[in-house]
Amino acid sequence: MFDLGNFLTLSTFGESHGVAYGGIINNFPAGLQVDLNKVQHQLDRRKPGQSSIVTQRKESDTVKFLSGIFEGKTTGTPIGFTIENENQKSKDYDHISGAYRPSHADFTYDQKFGNRDHRGGGKSSARETVNWVVAGSLAKQLLPKEVEIQAYVSSVGEIFCEKPYQDLDFSQVDSTDVRCPDAETAEKMISKIKEIKKEGNTIGGTITCVIRNLPVGIGEPVFGKLQAELAKAMLNINACKGFEYGSGFCGAKMTGKDHNDLFNEDFSTKTNLSGGIQGGISNGMDVYFRVAFKPVATILRPQESVDKDGNTITVEGKGRHDPCVLPRAVPIVENLAAFVLADLFLINKIRRI
Amino acid sequence: MFDLGNFLTLSTFGESHGVAYGGIINNFPAGLQVDLNKVQHQLDRRKPGQSSIVTQRKESDTVKFLSGIFEGKTTGTPIGFTIENENQKSKDYDHISGAYRPSHADFTYDQKFGNRDHRGGGKSSARETVNWVVAGSLAKQLLPKEVEIQAYVSSVGEIFCEKPYQDLDFSQVDSTDVRCPDAETAEKMISKIKEIKKEGNTIGGTITCVIRNLPVGIGEPVFGKLQAELAKAMLNINACKGFEYGSGFCGAKMTGKDHNDLFNEDFSTKTNLSGGIQGGISNGMDVYFRVAFKPVATILRPQESVDKDGNTITVEGKGRHDPCVLPRAVPIVENLAAFVLADLFLINKIRRI
Amino acid sequence: MFDLGNFLTLSTFGESHGVAYGGIINNFPAGLQVDLNKVQHQLDRRKPGQSSIVTQRKESDTVKFLSGIFEGKTTGTPIGFTIENENQKSKDYDHISGAYRPSHADFTYDQKFGNRDHRGGGKSSARETVNWVVAGSLAKQLLPKEVEIQAYVSSVGEIFCEKPYQDLDFSQVDSTDVRCPDAETAEKMISKIKEIKKEGNTIGGTITCVIRNLPVGIGEPVFGKLQAELAKAMLNINACKGFEYGSGFCGAKMTGKDHNDLFNEDFSTKTNLSGGIQGGISNGMDVYFRVAFKPVATILRPQESVDKDGNTITVEGKGRHDPCVLPRAVPIVENLAAFVLADLFLINKIRRI
Amino acid sequence: MFDLGNFLTLSTFGESHGVAYGGIINNFPAGLQVDLNKVQHQLDRRKPGQSSIVTQRKESDTVKFLSGIFEGKTTGTPIGFTIENENQKSKDYDHISGAYRPSHADFTYDQKFGNRDHRGGGKSSARETVNWVVAGSLAKQLLPKEVEIQAYVSSVGEIFCEKPYQDLDFSQVDSTDVRCPDAETAEKMISKIKEIKKEGNTIGGTITCVIRNLPVGIGEPVFGKLQAELAKAMLNINACKGFEYGSGFCGAKMTGKDHNDLFNEDFSTKTNLSGGIQGGISNGMDVYFRVAFKPVATILRPQESVDKDGNTITVEGKGRHDPCVLPRAVPIVENLAAFVLADLFLINKIRRI
Repeated sequence: MFDLGNFLTLSTFGESHGVAYGGIINNFPAGLQVDLNKVQHQLDRRKPGQSSIVTQRKESDTVKFLSGIFEGKTTGTPIGFTIENENQKSKDYDHISGAYRPSHADFTYDQKFGNRDHRGGGKSSARETVNWVVAGSLAKQLLPKEVEIQAYVSSVGEIFCEKPYQDLDFSQVDSTDVRCPDAETAEKMISKIKEIKKEGNTIGGTITCVIRNLPVGIGEPVFGKLQAELAKAMLNINACKGFEYGSGFCGAKMTGKDHNDLFNEDFSTKTNLSGGIQGGISNGMDVYFRVAFKPVATILRPQESVDKDGNTITVEGKGRHDPCVLPRAVPIVENLAAFVLADLFLINKIRRI
Repeated sequence: MFDLGNFLTLSTFGESHGVAYGGIINNFPAGLQVDLNKVQHQLDRRKPGQSSIVTQRKESDTVKFLSGIFEGKTTGTPIGFTIENENQKSKDYDHISGAYRPSHADFTYDQKFGNRDHRGGGKSSARETVNWVVAGSLAKQLLPKEVEIQAYVSSVGEIFCEKPYQDLDFSQVDSTDVRCPDAETAEKMISKIKEIKKEGNTIGGTITCVIRNLPVGIGEPVFGKLQAELAKAMLNINACKGFEYGSGFCGAKMTGKDHNDLFNEDFSTKTNLSGGIQGGISNGMDVYFRVAFKPVATILRPQESVDKDGNTITVEGKGRHDPCVLPRAVPIVENLAAFVLADLFLINKIRRI
Repeated sequence: MFDLGNFLTLSTFGESHGVAYGGIINNFPAGLQVDLNKVQHQLDRRKPGQSSIVTQRKESDTVKFLSGIFEGKTTGTPIGFTIENENQKSKDYDHISGAYRPSHADFTYDQKFGNRDHRGGGKSSARETVNWVVAGSLAKQLLPKEVEIQAYVSSVGEIFCEKPYQDLDFSQVDSTDVRCPDAETAEKMISKIKEIKKEGNTIGGTITCVIRNLPVGIGEPVFGKLQAELAKAMLNINACKGFEYGSGFCGAKMTGKDHNDLFNEDFSTKTNLSGGIQGGISNGMDVYFRVAFKPVATILRPQESVDKDGNTITVEGKGRHDPCVLPRAVPIVENLAAFVLADLFLINKIRRI
Repeated sequence: MFDLGNFLTLSTFGESHGVAYGGIINNFPAGLQVDLNKVQHQLDRRKPGQSSIVTQRKESDTVKFLSGIFEGKTTGTPIGFTIENENQKSKDYDHISGAYRPSHADFTYDQKFGNRDHRGGGKSSARETVNWVVAGSLAKQLLPKEVEIQAYVSSVGEIFCEKPYQDLDFSQVDSTDVRCPDAETAEKMISKIKEIKKEGNTIGGTITCVIRNLPVGIGEPVFGKLQAELAKAMLNINACKGFEYGSGFCGAKMTGKDHNDLFNEDFSTKTNLSGGIQGGISNGMDVYFRVAFKPVATILRPQESVDKDGNTITVEGKGRHDPCVLPRAVPIVENLAAFVLADLFLINKIRRI
């Protein structure tokens, strides 16, 4: 219960200032020659300190596999892994042990559980996503080689990448610090983030993710629709506020005549407002979706708040925080999507005789 | 696997032109005096033929409970129920048995499963939601009496209900055919739908749902975040294209300074851009979210398409279809939300000593 | 949660004196031409009134499929079914509505749930197994044709079928009323049951089940061992008190030198004390296990007991009850085993690349 | 899927010659002051090298908790833990990398997965049970203080502890190396094991487990019967061949008149052949069950076998192995039972309004 995935599952643990993060991947098929460098590469894309526009925390984020892989191949048994916490500055949080930071989970955790690890958010820290990147980057290797999953930052604040994804050169995503493949827009986004950072403020944005060459048939008809599984995964990302796929909220303004995707004779469709999914099942066209992220709640400016006794206090973020999570969230979105797809891909293999 | 819910679960069956729909609710607590009239009332809100702007199909949609309720009280054992199909005009679909209708699931089902019940969409029909309304309206009765779950149509095409939900009189939702509580906007929406219907066309829109008086603590920290469970449920609704909660996609344009919800001394917050959820857990403020619906794919106009052999054909919707699903989707959204909440509410009872 | 099966699942409902029993089978693969006569045949083997040594209750036990099968083939979508209750003599139970019958679940249900359907055991009735026979006999059709699952009554009271199963002619199981293929033993068992019945008493026994030609590789290494899944299923049968497989409790008396099954060069083993399972996974040899059934608790004789207020009362079974459940339990054991195997068989298809 | 438990779950990983064992406990309630010394104490009861009649392998079996516990209390978030492998003598297994040892899982793992970690059984090693002891001993602390779970060795080979459990002094279980509380029987068992060990042979036996003071109401009516959950857990222990509870296989020889447990006026029963469970639900009487263990397959004598190519070879166990697993299996049985009970105990808290 409360794992990621249905057949291929990920169970995780870890708090930001505990000993380690880690997880167990269950039901990963045996016999796959896995490239662990790809896993570490994805972790490196997510890790702090990559550029001047993300947090300067130092974490090597090195994954250690403890089981399930033997002589480079998966054995079909549970894959256990850990990522140790290294650069904890728990003292940065001493001043807030009794404080409820605005738009953080301090209050809700205290109310729900009665106690919590208050150092740096504890379980509510987005550092949890390090586990998902490990699992997703392994799961990616289960998918047919031709499946491409590419996300990019499509907006920061009011700055939007206006070009349709078809006009972007995805090979350029990682060549800008902000992970927007359109150089001009990227520059504007980076300037904006630097400006925001200087103010001790933070800013939100959106990530668009495109999945190409996905086989037809992925997704389940009722409570396991492909879009529902993707939405659930994305909405579990800490700062995520919304999900739309295909025409999304824009599609809600349209009429059926304009929205319907007419077929070509090879069963591809002339348009793709459906976002590659019909009836919860992939149809072979690109699956694409967009995820909204709120601005990081920790700002390096004084804010009025309350402590656990209801006294008015002033809190001010210390330590090293992201002015904008979007660049580091790109690999999270991609690898989370990969896990969802691999799970449904495996299941689909046994859905007909 | 692929049930709705985690502890309190709903498993369902049924095809639009099969014998019956139905489901099993597992782990419903014993001892609840259930009001079955409320269940039927919710079904009546969803059923066809309520007004001139929805499909004129005739279905009594009468639920029959087969187990789990004795002398008006739940017994703690599985609640089985069926809703018989009555007004099937399977012949309306004879002409399309080999056709792939645009933006329907005909093609994907055929590809995934190799065969399908082609009468009226079979399993892909939104008639499945009748099961969810039954389960959700029972689940609603598990929640504390003060919890209010109210959805309404917040847009049809380009017509938006511009007022914030706080300014609306929710008692008026059902008093207009379109289920928008703002009379003036409702009128515009209704006119639009009638116009669209006349053209044999269909139109999309959005539904906003507001949950009031939800206790603090509902939702789980990692893969069972309240927003993720709601998103998953909503994205399983047939025509749903997107989900956002709290500030949603707008929040992605904001900065942390403006987005953070400052606390009052009673732990309520001065603003509620968080949408009543922090760290995946309810904080006692209103939970609100918005769901996007695409226009119905079946239009009563000729469209070019292909058949299963890839031959070009013309398809034209016959039968009785909704020009706009939004009014009938309001009870679906509400009752689905109720089920999600009841599941997490029960689980929350055993999350601390 | 609390379904039968892991990927292929059965969720069920029904009380002995409610409207109907039924269930939903999820994730049954599409495209299987199913023989529904075989399902009904298995139900007929289980149903009351087959012979003079079982209960004389009249139930047609006709299964009605409501979804998931179209033109004789499975569609890959949930298979819903019901079996209506017909011959309820609820009045037979009026006298016991406040009584706690010895070794029945009246007391525990009341304590756990606070209320219960007291007519004939309600949910605790073994009539629930009718659902399992439906699901199991469909699941059986998913297994390779050569897989044979045969159970038989191996003891009634102190009367044991002493021959090893290899010496029995399984084609004779159904030719005796007691479902023991050894004619001589069967006769003794039948006499014993008749004698017991005359006394208004009941008697226990054991069922042995043999699975032949099961492919190698069925079962999962840790918490899904084949023997554990079988044990769990069997122990859920109402009167079941024990399960052993292979050498079972006798094996616990042996030494490793004598117990180890040495290999032949074709990887078959010279002996089969392992019962066809090593490390939780089938090895291609016969899987065999034995299930213990206690005597039916309802006896047609006065017994001292208490009512719900703790007053001493006398209860006496009325109505039509089985003096010995074993003959009717044979198809239950077989079909339950079939379901367990089909679930693990499907899963095994995706456990290696 | 394939976790231990339903709501409170344990997911595990580890191979005998990998880096570490470990697991994640999900949904453990927050706020419990846990005594980690009790956990280590249970591990010490299970660990090798305790006495001359068990394996002399040296493993400190020290558990390291990585998350979910803060300042001595559970936080309600996942509890991650590892136990490092220390005393691996992988070279002891070099000679058998291509061999299929009789009654081991070498052949079935190779067939199922295509490859395996062949060092010391890999995943099929009973060292996996170290994880269960950690989880079970934490879970035990969730149960009401008065619940006692005590197992003991009730037979070794043909030597049985003939006294009913009621006549035994459970405080003496750990005072003998073999963990049989009856001194005289214990001595015979120890002699037998020593004799067997000298021969390089191994021997089986049974463990009886008694659960006292369990509250009424634990267990679920259909697929989660208390006995079924216990049976499933026990049959997942590597060498387990059978499970019976209450009257067990003996009960199958009895008649209803003799087997029924008559009530006292306080709802206790005069006899307890039911083993404390009626209808799958605990009734407040002692729950007791018996588990059969086969003799360890690794014997220190030459045995004929085959290699993976089907060539006849001779294998001979090297290294340090248990002549009899029973003494070390006592804490495994107890802690596994504790986990099963804690899971159902939590669930029972939300089964009625």
